[in-house]
Amino acid sequence: MAILTFAPGPSKVYDKLPDYFQEAYQQGILSANHRSGVFMDLYKDTERLFKEKLAVPEDYKLLFTSSATENWEIITQSLVLKASFHIYSGSFGKKWFGFAQNIIPETAALVFDKNESLTVNDLEIGNDFDLIAITQNETSNATQVTNDTIAAIGNKYPDKMLAIDTTSSMAGIFLDFSLADIWYASVQKCFGLPAGLGILIVSPKAIERAKAKGEKGRYNSLNFMLENAANYQTHYTPNVLNIYLLNRVLADLPNIAKVNAKTEERMRILEEIVEQSPALDFLVSNEATRSRTVLGVGGEEKFIKQIKAEAEEQGMQMGSGYGPLKPTSFRIANFPALNDDEFEQLIAFLKAY
Amino acid sequence: MAILTFAPGPSKVYDKLPDYFQEAYQQGILSANHRSGVFMDLYKDTERLFKEKLAVPEDYKLLFTSSATENWEIITQSLVLKASFHIYSGSFGKKWFGFAQNIIPETAALVFDKNESLTVNDLEIGNDFDLIAITQNETSNATQVTNDTIAAIGNKYPDKMLAIDTTSSMAGIFLDFSLADIWYASVQKCFGLPAGLGILIVSPKAIERAKAKGEKGRYNSLNFMLENAANYQTHYTPNVLNIYLLNRVLADLPNIAKVNAKTEERMRILEEIVEQSPALDFLVSNEATRSRTVLGVGGEEKFIKQIKAEAEEQGMQMGSGYGPLKPTSFRIANFPALNDDEFEQLIAFLKAY
Repeated sequence: MAILTFAPGPSKVYDKLPDYFQEAYQQGILSANHRSGVFMDLYKDTERLFKEKLAVPEDYKLLFTSSATENWEIITQSLVLKASFHIYSGSFGKKWFGFAQNIIPETAALVFDKNESLTVNDLEIGNDFDLIAITQNETSNATQVTNDTIAAIGNKYPDKMLAIDTTSSMAGIFLDFSLADIWYASVQKCFGLPAGLGILIVSPKAIERAKAKGEKGRYNSLNFMLENAANYQTHYTPNVLNIYLLNRVLADLPNIAKVNAKTEERMRILEEIVEQSPALDFLVSNEATRSRTVLGVGGEEKFIKQIKAEAEEQGMQMGSGYGPLKPTSFRIANFPALNDDEFEQLIAFLKAY
Repeated sequence: MAILTFAPGPSKVYDKLPDYFQEAYQQGILSANHRSGVFMDLYKDTERLFKEKLAVPEDYKLLFTSSATENWEIITQSLVLKASFHIYSGSFGKKWFGFAQNIIPETAALVFDKNESLTVNDLEIGNDFDLIAITQNETSNATQVTNDTIAAIGNKYPDKMLAIDTTSSMAGIFLDFSLADIWYASVQKCFGLPAGLGILIVSPKAIERAKAKGEKGRYNSLNFMLENAANYQTHYTPNVLNIYLLNRVLADLPNIAKVNAKTEERMRILEEIVEQSPALDFLVSNEATRSRTVLGVGGEEKFIKQIKAEAEEQGMQMGSGYGPLKPTSFRIANFPALNDDEFEQLIAFLKAY
């Protein structure tokens, strides 16, 4: 039996995937051409499910990419006119900034502490920046930026475009997609699927901007992708299997409001354990900036080592801390694919500390 | 039951995939982190299998990308110093040329007829070009360029780098990898796997060239990929599932010499049927330029329509012709994942014409 992983990287997948794979094989989906009606119907239906289950606005477009990292490049290459302004507190926000800066050296950033709530009133972003980049859920340090904060930034800068990294939160919590023009994620997190597929969602305003910029001819030019997507096709031979699995998983999901309630409920249980434990500490002390889908637990290097080893003995893998936080923290993915028994097992383990 | 596809796009997959998926699920491969030992061992072992089963030279490096199209961009972006010179006869060769020209306007091409064997003696490629791009197997018009021709071009231009598109032939026929520095393919063709993974194989000379050019910082910069590959990791969260399936399929394969013999034998049987048929014609009349993994059958528009419809009635899908050849031809993928019963079914069907 495989170890049960609570890592917020590629994470636990939905239990029904072997059945869905079998169906895909028997129906010939694994051999389906991406210019065929079979694929176009699958794409169309998957987009419909994003709108129905995740409350994505009707006029937004779903696009498939290979990874969240690829989305970083697409946004800067195809959408940014002058430069983007990045607001972040952790490693993935910093990497996004680095990718953008490589293409446009004038890219700038505001780095804030993981326990610091963004004060939108104090934010000063000049006319040299036409896109604001926000890491809504920062997987590396287990923080989040709320819908309310995104709304406030959008209200303050209605002329700038907002691009939101929700790699580890989309399909796990309620996101108000109407607040921004560009949203992206990876399927190996809250979607509970194998890695190898990136999600990019764009508003009509973002599509217009891409056309206005007119960038084309590159492998991942957004205009090239949009041209194909207009016919529910992709610009390259896509991972049809993963798109099929995504479709099936979305169809099973309750509405995002329900998913959100369960995510919140589980996170409150986890938080209570940390609060009441003499040994466990929050990596993020400010409740307002604490991620709902990834819990960071901090502690002494020796203790972190020990608890991870004891979890492994019981068949569970805690996610390591990320980057500089590796020795003094571990992370728990509070993703929907975790079933109730598995969550109980986690609770029982943590309660002993 | 799904229809049996003979299309040379995404094509018939290996029958054992559902078992392998089940194993991947049970072993936790679907949740494996791409920075973990589990993944690094899988990558290392897959590279070993490429060398053992496909006769890739020991000092060549295996890299994973998302698609063959992405490889086009990587080659021009990270390896070409001045410009590349493209030799092609069909639509995919032309597309590769287009991608390269978008990045480097000085890119040039020699277009030859599908029935024309390349006369290497007459070839004139000047000093302005440092990479020669050859579509070894052109999926769109069912032609090929032989190992001998690649060898002759390499001998004539020892200072230029050779990049070879084997999207629809790698793992189906014997390729002498020592003859060129860059080879690429897609797994949804002769590897008999679901789409979503590109293969890129580079020689030590190509690695040196990438370092000399020093291009970096883009999503698919070769130097970024090579840095990660040195530790058997990837530059992005990869399609671990497909890499696992690739590993299992390669392990099952006999040596490429045996695979090649079977591919040739089956193609000879198919060719004999076309030769003896009063109704069927070769799309490629010159035997020397005819692909061994994709057979193109030409005919009157009405006849092509009819034979495709009759195949569908019997549960078989012939591949459509490509681009301008669509109404007057169909294509048959002679790929190894086809089992003997399926091949017999195809033969019986074609013999009736």
